[in-house]
Amino acid sequence: MSTPPASIQVDLVIIGAGPAGLALANWFRNTNLKVIIVDKKPGPTPRGQAEGLKSITNEIFDSYGIGPQITAESWRLEEIACWGTSKDGGGIVREQVIPDKVAELGKPRETMLQQARVEHHMLQNILSHPHSNIEIRYNTAPVSVDVDTSCPHETDVFPISVSLERVIADTCAMNGETTTGINGHATNRHATNGRNGHRPNGNDGPTDRISAKYIVGCDGAHSWLRKQIDVTLEGDLTDSVFGVVDMVPKSNFPDIRRVCYLRAASGTILLVPRSNKEVRMYIPVESGSALPDPKDLTFDRVMDAARKIIAPYTMEVGSVSWWSAYRVRQRVGNHFSRLNERAFLVGDAVHTHSPKAGQGMNTSIQDAYNLGWKLRLVLEGQIRSAEARQDLLRTYESERRPVALDLIAFDKGFLKLFAAPSAQFDTEVLQALKFTTGLSIRYAPSCAVQLPEGVQQLGPSLLKADLVPGKRLPDFRVVYQADGIPTWMHRRLSATGQFRVLIFAGDIADPATLRRLHDVGVYLGESKSLKHVMMPEPGQQPLVEVLVVHCAERDQVDFLALPEIYRPWSDESGYDFWRVFADVESVHDGHGRAYERLGIDRQVGCTVVVRPDGYIGAVLDVEHVEGIEMYFERLHV
Amino acid sequence: MSTPPASIQVDLVIIGAGPAGLALANWFRNTNLKVIIVDKKPGPTPRGQAEGLKSITNEIFDSYGIGPQITAESWRLEEIACWGTSKDGGGIVREQVIPDKVAELGKPRETMLQQARVEHHMLQNILSHPHSNIEIRYNTAPVSVDVDTSCPHETDVFPISVSLERVIADTCAMNGETTTGINGHATNRHATNGRNGHRPNGNDGPTDRISAKYIVGCDGAHSWLRKQIDVTLEGDLTDSVFGVVDMVPKSNFPDIRRVCYLRAASGTILLVPRSNKEVRMYIPVESGSALPDPKDLTFDRVMDAARKIIAPYTMEVGSVSWWSAYRVRQRVGNHFSRLNERAFLVGDAVHTHSPKAGQGMNTSIQDAYNLGWKLRLVLEGQIRSAEARQDLLRTYESERRPVALDLIAFDKGFLKLFAAPSAQFDTEVLQALKFTTGLSIRYAPSCAVQLPEGVQQLGPSLLKADLVPGKRLPDFRVVYQADGIPTWMHRRLSATGQFRVLIFAGDIADPATLRRLHDVGVYLGESKSLKHVMMPEPGQQPLVEVLVVHCAERDQVDFLALPEIYRPWSDESGYDFWRVFADVESVHDGHGRAYERLGIDRQVGCTVVVRPDGYIGAVLDVEHVEGIEMYFERLHV
Repeated sequence: MSTPPASIQVDLVIIGAGPAGLALANWFRNTNLKVIIVDKKPGPTPRGQAEGLKSITNEIFDSYGIGPQITAESWRLEEIACWGTSKDGGGIVREQVIPDKVAELGKPRETMLQQARVEHHMLQNILSHPHSNIEIRYNTAPVSVDVDTSCPHETDVFPISVSLERVIADTCAMNGETTTGINGHATNRHATNGRNGHRPNGNDGPTDRISAKYIVGCDGAHSWLRKQIDVTLEGDLTDSVFGVVDMVPKSNFPDIRRVCYLRAASGTILLVPRSNKEVRMYIPVESGSALPDPKDLTFDRVMDAARKIIAPYTMEVGSVSWWSAYRVRQRVGNHFSRLNERAFLVGDAVHTHSPKAGQGMNTSIQDAYNLGWKLRLVLEGQIRSAEARQDLLRTYESERRPVALDLIAFDKGFLKLFAAPSAQFDTEVLQALKFTTGLSIRYAPSCAVQLPEGVQQLGPSLLKADLVPGKRLPDFRVVYQADGIPTWMHRRLSATGQFRVLIFAGDIADPATLRRLHDVGVYLGESKSLKHVMMPEPGQQPLVEVLVVHCAERDQVDFLALPEIYRPWSDESGYDFWRVFADVESVHDGHGRAYERLGIDRQVGCTVVVRPDGYIGAVLDVEHVEGIEMYFERLHV
Repeated sequence: MSTPPASIQVDLVIIGAGPAGLALANWFRNTNLKVIIVDKKPGPTPRGQAEGLKSITNEIFDSYGIGPQITAESWRLEEIACWGTSKDGGGIVREQVIPDKVAELGKPRETMLQQARVEHHMLQNILSHPHSNIEIRYNTAPVSVDVDTSCPHETDVFPISVSLERVIADTCAMNGETTTGINGHATNRHATNGRNGHRPNGNDGPTDRISAKYIVGCDGAHSWLRKQIDVTLEGDLTDSVFGVVDMVPKSNFPDIRRVCYLRAASGTILLVPRSNKEVRMYIPVESGSALPDPKDLTFDRVMDAARKIIAPYTMEVGSVSWWSAYRVRQRVGNHFSRLNERAFLVGDAVHTHSPKAGQGMNTSIQDAYNLGWKLRLVLEGQIRSAEARQDLLRTYESERRPVALDLIAFDKGFLKLFAAPSAQFDTEVLQALKFTTGLSIRYAPSCAVQLPEGVQQLGPSLLKADLVPGKRLPDFRVVYQADGIPTWMHRRLSATGQFRVLIFAGDIADPATLRRLHDVGVYLGESKSLKHVMMPEPGQQPLVEVLVVHCAERDQVDFLALPEIYRPWSDESGYDFWRVFADVESVHDGHGRAYERLGIDRQVGCTVVVRPDGYIGAVLDVEHVEGIEMYFERLHV
């Protein structure tokens, strides 16, 4: 006779410890909130799967404090070579080489690091935090979930009930139908449907019951939670089967260390260099009506297809660290949240597409990054009304579902670009590179993205600008006033759950401009409606941090004469020297030219409310301090 | 009745697992050589002690593969502020702020990281290597050592016999006489003489006997090995007692986040920012004839002295992570090696000086880096005669003892610079900054530093140049020919024990220049006298790697058409794409201007033989291929 399962109360249960689940959990590592992550896998992904990090994702890692380690391990990509069929039919010829660069970013737009290492760093960041209350259970799968929908967004109830069981994991699946193998040996296994291939570990009953306030499915293309909460994926299977191979090539192809699009009659190979002398290749194996099941493909057949395209160059196989075959499904979930925003789906669980633009892991991490701070604010009791809590949580779907839909549309067009280059090829590629870097994302107005009073929609000039509500704050380099150390801003905007009021104060060597900054600082310091978010009781982290970026020479600024809100004093550690920045030449790293890059007038300036996820909540005139009060009032914090 | 001690045979025994010992051991992590490190401490240094890394030391970490991690953790220093007494006697005033910069380096010259973390990364780098044969024993001290001097530099004998015992460690000592404490509580302990404060762990007999080929003492200012091998330190005690404090200051001193020299009548405080809101301060407490014993100093007395100097600014104490007091000894060992170069002393064991120029840990690591590759070459059997082996090992003393003597001379002058600034202050400070970065070090001619035939001494113009035998190869940034990825050269010159023949080939878009590079490559590939070092049997690492830095545009170069020595083929992994570099604009990181910085003519070029430690062994005309053969013949490799 089995004993009744134990019940544990947690704030949040996350199904799936892949990139999405771990990125979500990282929001909670510096809180007291209790989080459980379960995954049927026996541990982190060992090899293969996703690879490639966009700069926006690296900025997320910066905000989690793991950017430098990840960058140090990543392989950089500098150039893209395009090859096509030669006119005389004798194989492929190089058509052009273009820089793999988006100048606006001011840094590499793309680096290669395998999912295994990305998971490793995110996992270590959670485990190594001295105070985090996050538990990770591998070999564990959910069996059932019940949600009591009678209490929308009360904060002290646990309406989710999940039963878990220990499992022995089967092999992991990529997007779509897959077969995976290592060292060239196909395993011919794939994830089954229904209970996702797991089976009880000599125990056919649930071993644990968990009560939670919220549940998030980060459980991939075959998401278990998606089925439980009646979300369906909408879209199509594509009509091509691809092989993907990570291997050391032995080849005389001269561009084997560049990103390459190799166009031939039978399809376009995408080749991407990675570390350890390896390359990753996406190889079209078959297309048309009578497609093979990907799991029937063999490694040799994939390599035969590759050799045909790359001829007359040779391509012998050195060591193979991973390979797989797949048929792409381009689908998006009809909902991203359900049950009064008590249940959410993130990443592959609600969108699948071609892996070739390197958007799968990036988009999953960005989904999680969008959802995490909202759940954190709600769970920490920062939002004062149930309606406002639900409003904020609804923005997860209203912000991220359009991104997924745009991604599918992009995905359909992207490879056509290389299949039949047009006269505007360079321009089109640059547009595509910008898209994959997230530069064109703009979230719709909501409680967290507020347009100026009376404005319903952005006009054409603002739509093109970088500094508008709903877009991500572009990263820029400035110098700390107090010590001259340069920093990228997103590295400074660590994922603490805080909003930032970023005052671009202008040239405060001008007394009138300094006076304005002073008046704003005094106003903010005395504002009754902001006191609880800007200057809470000692020992509490303020929900809003005020930062200043001026463009005066540093020796013209008397830091300690600024109002206290810009350099608060603590009885434990003295002044805070890290809130005031200058847009000036640095001693070692050059000039960041932040005002110029962001299009900010040095005399006028502006104030930007930055959300905890680095997106712009509002853009205001520096004098318009009431606009700051209004932003947080509308959020009900 | 005690059992006789067990005997173990090792290649090398290292006494002391501080920065010097660990830096030495890192040379052996990717070899089969058996190394034991012993230290009486219970584990790595927990806090305090040395801090501050010069760029040359960071380049050593780059070559060990741990540069990025260490840089990511380090605190950068950008500016130096000089304060003096005000004319009206009312306290101190800022006199000037100068950049903490040496433009030639092209990167920050100095970063702050505490010894504990430096040791951590070096230790992890050894422990995490899959194949290293290095054992570290903490709580272990040597009891006796015997050296059989009858067999100088045979490679298959073990003339060193060391007995070890388990100990319980006492507190660790800094240079000179010290008293240390944490959190403001003085412990009033200090390292005792004789057996260095260790005591047997309930066992009064030796527990192990080790036979070794070589022994190196990295055991600090109170070195046990130094006494056993009759090396004496020559020099003086200085006439000042200092306190050193790592703490969070609560202060209204405006330059508290800059490197500061605060000059007052009672002495000059050196203040250096570090991470976690802390600063390190070196505080003169007393000078003159009736000096207190440092161990009688209290934290309060140190802070009283600090407050007097910094007045009228306030300086309250937040948390204190470490403090100590010391009286400087400026001394250098009369020998750095003994007993036919079977025994060596490294770091604080043979030189002690003021910690204020941040040279202790840096010089110790550089000593070890100088010795390590020589021992590695000898132990691996790469040097063909006993005389040549001893010649090479003798260069450790002939190269590093003059550096230590120069350092003492510098140390005596350095603080005087700030005590009484002259009209040439800026120039003198810049000279000092260059000195501490190692830019003025030039090793004397030897088997490993070879001047052109017939030249006995460098002329005045060459003495000033950067690219001369005996100087360190200045670091520079170039771009890989094959993939456009930028790299700093010393990061590429990993510590594998290999020499590099670095051919600055010039503008090989010019057919004649390309022809010259081709001919050199063919000659090197066919040279009988170089075959065993450049192209050994498959599977063996060549002792010499040939690298090419050209200055043509990359699209003018047909990489695979170059002679094989520049892009060797391996049956396991295809071509080696990482031996040819271009001095051109990179896609994301600008132009390194290597030819310009190194003073190399783009038409003429030159060839540089780089030793395994990054120092220049020879500078040759590109055509003078016999010069390369001669270099290695004289070394007897």
